[in-house]
Amino acid sequence: MTTLDYTTQKDWQFVGGQHQSPIDITTANTTASQLSAISWRGLYQAKTIVGTDTTLQATGTGAAYLNDRDFNFDQIHFHTPAEHLIDGQAAPLEWHLVHRSATGQLAVVAVFGRIGKPNASFQGLLDQLTPNASHELTEPINLTELLPDTGTVYHYLGSLTTPPLTETVEWYVCADSVMLGEKQLATYQALFKANNRDVQSLNERPVIAERL
Amino acid sequence: MTTLDYTTQKDWQFVGGQHQSPIDITTANTTASQLSAISWRGLYQAKTIVGTDTTLQATGTGAAYLNDRDFNFDQIHFHTPAEHLIDGQAAPLEWHLVHRSATGQLAVVAVFGRIGKPNASFQGLLDQLTPNASHELTEPINLTELLPDTGTVYHYLGSLTTPPLTETVEWYVCADSVMLGEKQLATYQALFKANNRDVQSLNERPVIAERL
Repeated sequence: MTTLDYTTQKDWQFVGGQHQSPIDITTANTTASQLSAISWRGLYQAKTIVGTDTTLQATGTGAAYLNDRDFNFDQIHFHTPAEHLIDGQAAPLEWHLVHRSATGQLAVVAVFGRIGKPNASFQGLLDQLTPNASHELTEPINLTELLPDTGTVYHYLGSLTTPPLTETVEWYVCADSVMLGEKQLATYQALFKANNRDVQSLNERPVIAERL
Repeated sequence: MTTLDYTTQKDWQFVGGQHQSPIDITTANTTASQLSAISWRGLYQAKTIVGTDTTLQATGTGAAYLNDRDFNFDQIHFHTPAEHLIDGQAAPLEWHLVHRSATGQLAVVAVFGRIGKPNASFQGLLDQLTPNASHELTEPINLTELLPDTGTVYHYLGSLTTPPLTETVEWYVCADSVMLGEKQLATYQALFKANNRDVQSLNERPVIAERL
């Protein structure tokens, strides 16, 4: 039995780092649930382009119910190739729709891009992109075409995929990918190098297969 | 601007320890919400007494909606004096109803005890207690009298209050305390020493005042 000595509690060590993201989702090991993962509520818009040298990023407004709770959309950014794997496979592009609740709970909706017809929302962001320079948009960019509206959503608890790698993040990884043009992907990849974090150990975490 | 070097990602440091529990809740600094914090669903029962030398602990069954999501009751244990403070004041006793969701999300409902009429559920646990020895109960103990059924609930994101101090815990701290007998408290305190962790820095975390 562990004995806890409250007189030496200043020496207790905080243990973290066992619930990191991204992960490789083995679909055969997920647990099916009838829970509603995501309900989009109202318009998703980008309002400010954030200059970084590693990714296209934009802040904006939007709202969703995630597992039936209120979350506000905060920012979107892109990773190439995808950070999350599905049965070991990586999509060419993955974007993260970062949300926050009133209590400060972080929740990220991850969406994969696949080559197909051009995507107007992605084009809107590419057109306004000026690497390393932030600027407010005179006209907001409609992000609707970057949001999937059907399919399975893999839900698990993880972390931010960039430092400080904070571990209080709910992940909603959408199985159904969204189309974007081959030229659009080439334009993005000409501007930014690979920025995918390696997959991390699952460490016994359950992954729930919910419905969008 | 921060430059992220993905070729040295093995050296990225995980940063944690800024969202610890317990906290001192300054009620004037909480944000009111109409969100339903807790809906008790079905019977809460203790089924096994867990022997520890620091607290009375029992595992059992029960279920609640916490912020409208399904959680299962896992275990109850006690702290004296209370770990959470309300405007700097500590109750003589605080118990933690530890819950878990299907994804493994931890959520703890914290309830304060105040001196008043004897509490049948608490007495049931005290009667079965054998410090340092675990045993299954032949008859489950009904925990109903340890659950508040009205009042404000302070909701914030924190940690376990004992090692490993893991930071993925939703806290629901009930403002309305529950009565227990003076003799009952004395019986408990004769068996266990003070086991309250010191309050931790809030670090800009919002605290939401919800309704039970």
